[in-house]
Formats: sequence, C-alpha cells, structure tokens
Amino acid sequence: MPKINEHFTRLSKSYLFVEIAKRVRMWEEAHSDTEIIKLGIGDVTRPLPPSAIQALHGATDEMADPARFRGYGPEQGYDFLRNAIVAHDYEPRGVTISAEDIFVSDGSKCDTGNFQELFAVDQTVAVPDPVYPVYVDTNIMAGRHDRIVYMKGTPDNGFVSPPPNEHVDLLYLCFPNNPTGATATRSQLEQYVQYALDHDALILFYAAYVEFIRDPDIPRSIFEIPGAERCAVEFRSFSKTAGFTGLRCAYTVIPPTVTATDSTGTTYSVRDLWARRHSTKFNGASYPVQRAAAAVYSPQGAVEIRELADYYLGNAEIIRQGIDSLGFDSVGGTNSPYIWVNAGRPSWDFFDEILNRTGVVITPGAGFGAGGEGFIRISAFNDREKVKVAMDRIKKYL
Amino acid sequence: MPKINEHFTRLSKSYLFVEIAKRVRMWEEAHSDTEIIKLGIGDVTRPLPPSAIQALHGATDEMADPARFRGYGPEQGYDFLRNAIVAHDYEPRGVTISAEDIFVSDGSKCDTGNFQELFAVDQTVAVPDPVYPVYVDTNIMAGRHDRIVYMKGTPDNGFVSPPPNEHVDLLYLCFPNNPTGATATRSQLEQYVQYALDHDALILFYAAYVEFIRDPDIPRSIFEIPGAERCAVEFRSFSKTAGFTGLRCAYTVIPPTVTATDSTGTTYSVRDLWARRHSTKFNGASYPVQRAAAAVYSPQGAVEIRELADYYLGNAEIIRQGIDSLGFDSVGGTNSPYIWVNAGRPSWDFFDEILNRTGVVITPGAGFGAGGEGFIRISAFNDREKVKVAMDRIKKYL
Repeated sequence: MPKINEHFTRLSKSYLFVEIAKRVRMWEEAHSDTEIIKLGIGDVTRPLPPSAIQALHGATDEMADPARFRGYGPEQGYDFLRNAIVAHDYEPRGVTISAEDIFVSDGSKCDTGNFQELFAVDQTVAVPDPVYPVYVDTNIMAGRHDRIVYMKGTPDNGFVSPPPNEHVDLLYLCFPNNPTGATATRSQLEQYVQYALDHDALILFYAAYVEFIRDPDIPRSIFEIPGAERCAVEFRSFSKTAGFTGLRCAYTVIPPTVTATDSTGTTYSVRDLWARRHSTKFNGASYPVQRAAAAVYSPQGAVEIRELADYYLGNAEIIRQGIDSLGFDSVGGTNSPYIWVNAGRPSWDFFDEILNRTGVVITPGAGFGAGGEGFIRISAFNDREKVKVAMDRIKKYL
Repeated sequence: MPKINEHFTRLSKSYLFVEIAKRVRMWEEAHSDTEIIKLGIGDVTRPLPPSAIQALHGATDEMADPARFRGYGPEQGYDFLRNAIVAHDYEPRGVTISAEDIFVSDGSKCDTGNFQELFAVDQTVAVPDPVYPVYVDTNIMAGRHDRIVYMKGTPDNGFVSPPPNEHVDLLYLCFPNNPTGATATRSQLEQYVQYALDHDALILFYAAYVEFIRDPDIPRSIFEIPGAERCAVEFRSFSKTAGFTGLRCAYTVIPPTVTATDSTGTTYSVRDLWARRHSTKFNGASYPVQRAAAAVYSPQGAVEIRELADYYLGNAEIIRQGIDSLGFDSVGGTNSPYIWVNAGRPSWDFFDEILNRTGVVITPGAGFGAGGEGFIRISAFNDREKVKVAMDRIKKYL
C-alpha cells in the first residue's frame, strides 16, 4: 500500500463542532418546547447585499449568452476585481499595492492553509494561542509539529501577545482576532513589524474581520505600518465583510518587495512563488462570484456592507453589555463580531451551564487551543431578535 | 529571510501558453485583415445549459432571502449534489459508491494537485507522457522530482501506455486523455487495476472528459473495473461536461476500501485522510454553483449536457476528417474533444507553419512533456462555424 504522510497522524482530532452538535442534539430532544439559539459558529446569517445579488444575476445572464459567456478566468482573478480591491481597500488608506500583488481565491481558509507550502519544512512558525486551528493543523501536516511557537494571549495582555522572545521565520497574526475579538493598535502592529524586520521573518496577516473596525485609530491593513511591505503578506475575505461564506471569495496580497531565500542565499520573490503555486494548484474563483465581490465596492455596495457590519456590531453590543452586567470580564465586541468571555471555570462546563439553563449555544474556548481554556466565544452572527432573546435568557437564568 | 521550499526551484518554467500568446500577438499585428481562430486551449465556448442557468438564478434568489440564505456549506459538498452524483454517474453503471465517498470541490486541478499531500515524500509516482503538467509539477513541489516514472504514450501503443515495468506507489491516469484524446478499453483499464493490486499501488484516475464517450464498450469510471474499489480514486469535473470552467465545480470519489499504511504497518482509510485535508484546507464549493451542478442531473439537464458534448464531438469529427484527408496520423477526436496529430516535425515548427499559413492556433505537443514532441493537440472547443473555417483554411493552405 502507498505510505501515508505520517505528519497527519500527529493532528489532534477536530471534535469541537461535532461535540457541540451532539450536546445540542441531546438538549433539543429533552426541550422540544424551547427554541435553541446559536451564538456559536462564526457564520453570517443575513442575506447577501442587494448589489451582490444583482451582480450574480447579471453574471448568470452573461453565462447564458454565447457572445458574453466566460470560461476559464485568469488564475489570479479578473482585473475588474483586483483593480477594485486596490482602489477601495488600499489606496484610501495610503497604502501602495498594485493589482499584480492581489491573488483572488475561493477562500482565506485555503490561502492561509496553503501558503506555508512555499517554505522549507524546517522553518519555525509562531501562532497565536488561542488560535484559529487551521494555522496549526496545516503546519503539522507539513511536518512542522515541533517547530510551532505559541504566542500566548492572556487577560493581562488583552489577548494581544507581544512578539515571541525567540527567533521564528513565519508569524501568523489575526486582527480583529478570531476567536478573541481583540484588535491590535498601531503601536502593537509596529512591534510585530519591527520583530519581523529584525528577525528576517515573514508575517502572515489574516484580516478577515476588518469591516467591523469602527475606531479610526486601528489600522485595517498590516501594510499601513511602514516596513510591512518588506515582511508581510495579507489575507482578506468577503465572507464576513459581505456575507460570502456560502459564495466563496477571498484574496491574498503580496508586495513585490517580500522575499525569501534558498540555502545558497539566492533570494526569491514570494509573490512569484505564490503565483507559481496558485496557477499550478488553483484554477480561478467562480466568475459570477467575482462579479458579486466587485459589486460590493460600488457606492451602493459600500453602503450595504457597512450596514451589514453595523447590524452585527449592534448584536455584539447587546451581547457585550449583557455579559458586562453579569460581572464577567471580556474582550472584543467592539470593532469585532466576537466576544471572548472569561468564564472563571472550565470552558466546557460553562458551555453546558449556558446550554442547560438557557438553550443558548456558545463556543467553548478550549476548542481554540490550550490558551482558550477557561474562556468562551460568543458570536454576534445571528438575527437581532434572537440575540436579544438569548441575552435576556442568559441574564435571567445564569 | 524565511527559507523557501527548494523543490520549487526544480520546476520547469511554464512558458507554453505565454509563448503561444506572444506568437499569436505578433501574427495578429501583421495580419489585421484575417480573423484568428483558436483551437488551442481546452476551454469550452458554449453558454451554460439552461437548467444550470435557471438553478443559478434560483440559488441567487435564495441568497437574497433571510429565510433561505445559506452561509458555510458542508465542506464535503451538499447532500443534494452528492446524492445526485451517486444516482446518475455511478448507480446506472452498476457501481457501488455512496454519498460519503464523494468530495465536492471547486475544481479537479486543485484536487489532482492536492491529493499527493496525503502520501509520504518518498513514494514513487507514475505519470503518463505526454502529460497534463499539474501531475508532474505538484509532485516536484512536494519533493518527488527524482521519483517520477513516465509511462510513454506512442503511436505504437495508441497513446495508452501499458503499466510501468517497475514498482510505483501512485499512478496517475487520465482517460479520455488530455492531451492525446486517447481512450482506454476495458481490458487496458483491467491491466492497470491488476498492476495496482499486484503492487499495492493507488490509481489516481482523472476522468474529466467522460461525457464525450459515446462508445458503450468504453468504461466511464475506473470503478467499473472489479478491484478498483480497493486501489483507485477518481476525479471528475463539471468543467467540460457542463461548461463549468468559469463556474468551478468538481468532485473526487474515494471508496472506503482504499487504504494506505504508515511505517509501522498500521493501515488508514484514504477517504478519512482526504476528509481531514479537505476540511482543514477547503471551505466548500460555492452554493449557487453546487445548485447549478445538481441541475445538470435533472432529466432536462441531462439532455442539455448531452447536446453540449454532441456539439463539440461534431466539431471534433470535422477536425479529425480534415486531418485524415491531409494524410496525417492522429488519435482522439472520437469519444474525446481532442485530436492528437503526428506532425512529422518539431511541434513548435508545425505550430508556426499552421499559424503563419492559416491564422489557426493549435497547441504544440512539446508543451505536454518530452513525449509530446513531434505532435500537436487540436481542441474541438469552439463554435461550429469557426471550426469549419479553420479546417477549410488548413486543408487549403497546408
């Protein structure tokens, strides 16, 4: 038989959402009279913005027309979308990014998971803790299980860990953070960039939640920090910004000045390496979906996605106030759709307590690694009325 | 600086379509009075089937409706699509495949490129020659540059090489073949399966062009061969079947009886390993696109995609007859949209000759590896009238 990639055997089983589903099912069977309310998984619930809907219908009509049909698109994405990204997500922030630096894809999970392929297996990787599990699992699959350094988020550092004390080669960051909802200030991001420049490290900056930032002092892109254009790659997504979790569209930004080296000291453009990987193992994002993504940059689309984020931020505010009123410490919930609550007990115990007393589902922090134990994540992605009912129940019964 | 994956430095530059585009541009500048006709790249040109269009509009309307909106879908694909695949692509062929064996994705290029990740780097890989470059490049990226065995297709074996004489662990096959258009008989597929069973090897069977098979004696799935359920994985796509190259949908089939081993002799389900990879590095195919894919299995959709394939097969017949009438030897063009022509001279020379004399663009076989030198690929993916004009010019001026 073929021999497996044995690094797969070092992966932890990913039981988190399976276990949650099991406990929820048991609770539902015993409480058929009470509606369960899910503030667990980080998935949007509101319909797509009208501008995106209109673009999907329009592109579908094109695909029915012999004169306007489109087959394979450019692997790196259509210019109409890449140019819109530059013009709306970077130029207004004073960031110099060109369309050639943009790689459109079907999702940031794929991009953040695949990006480590460009680097040698013996490279050391820093990840936050608590952490989005994809960063850890994809590096374990690649053989870096003993080369992962955890940057511990704690209540004391507001869940924004300082850079590692030791040398690492790759540094995953995520702000606004999943799962904690913490945001990094300009000065904190400057520290990371300084670390990367000092250590010749590369920052992999996951910025899927920037649309929720309302504080004008919080940078929306790592490239707002001088020097980042030499030591950072940024991953962005339309999933949370525009409700595209079911449509699938994201992009990765790699300035031409980001380089890596081989063992002889020859330097390589990371953008060129990713271009080779992207064109060899990917065949472009869906054309109607790219049209929908471009549509959210129209004047009307921009208004719609701001309203969409405002809606979830309104939910977050209700959750945050409710949690505050019960005397729990928390981070997130402003500039972020997640509220990260210090449970003061094991996170699965608190999960059970909330579920059993209120019929509300949250996510136990332990599912995001050792640093999440003792915390829970509450997600603002749900309908306003359900969020209100959930928080009323929590305030009443907890 | 981070150290790169040095296997990337062993990749050949992929100049094929860039070089073609350059020569075409030069020709166009010199011949502004003649319409260029492209029978080069293997991309569909006909609009999407009406049933797929209707499904895209319908799913778009769902995404606009708060009550019917869908966010993240199941990573392995929606049941409505996986069940349709089983019921229409496998059950009628007497093949026992269950929905749990089906993994829906955004493309077979990704799937065939990523699948090798499941296996140890020291595994030996057989690929056809000429070959779809993705099989080779993705194994080079993984570090198997010196573990690739080429199965040589020649006019003598009708471009269906026998299995290797030596042991290999993984065996890429593609029938109907890209680039040669050759199909494998039942008995030839039986030889491959016997080889795989004898050598404990795994067949990676790429069957993106099955919709073009009209000969009832040619198997459409590797799983029609007894024993394949223990030694084969199959990759299928809606790209050529239903014109989805711009929409992006494909699927991979892994029976639960396909296993691999670690160095201690413990066996693992390959389906489980792929499930872990798929759910860690992929987030599901676009929902409207999955609805469109399912729609081509409806009674009306089935008629439409058969007509679509018939259209391209009609083109292929015109090309094949034209090539025959000029006295060239060829394979393909029946049960396949590609015609593979023995040029009797270096393939780039023949490319230039055809372009300069007729304004028709084909693909030089040398772009598909050493075994393609001396051949050209003509693609039937174009409008009927253009194919007729192209072949008239070729018959007149060549």
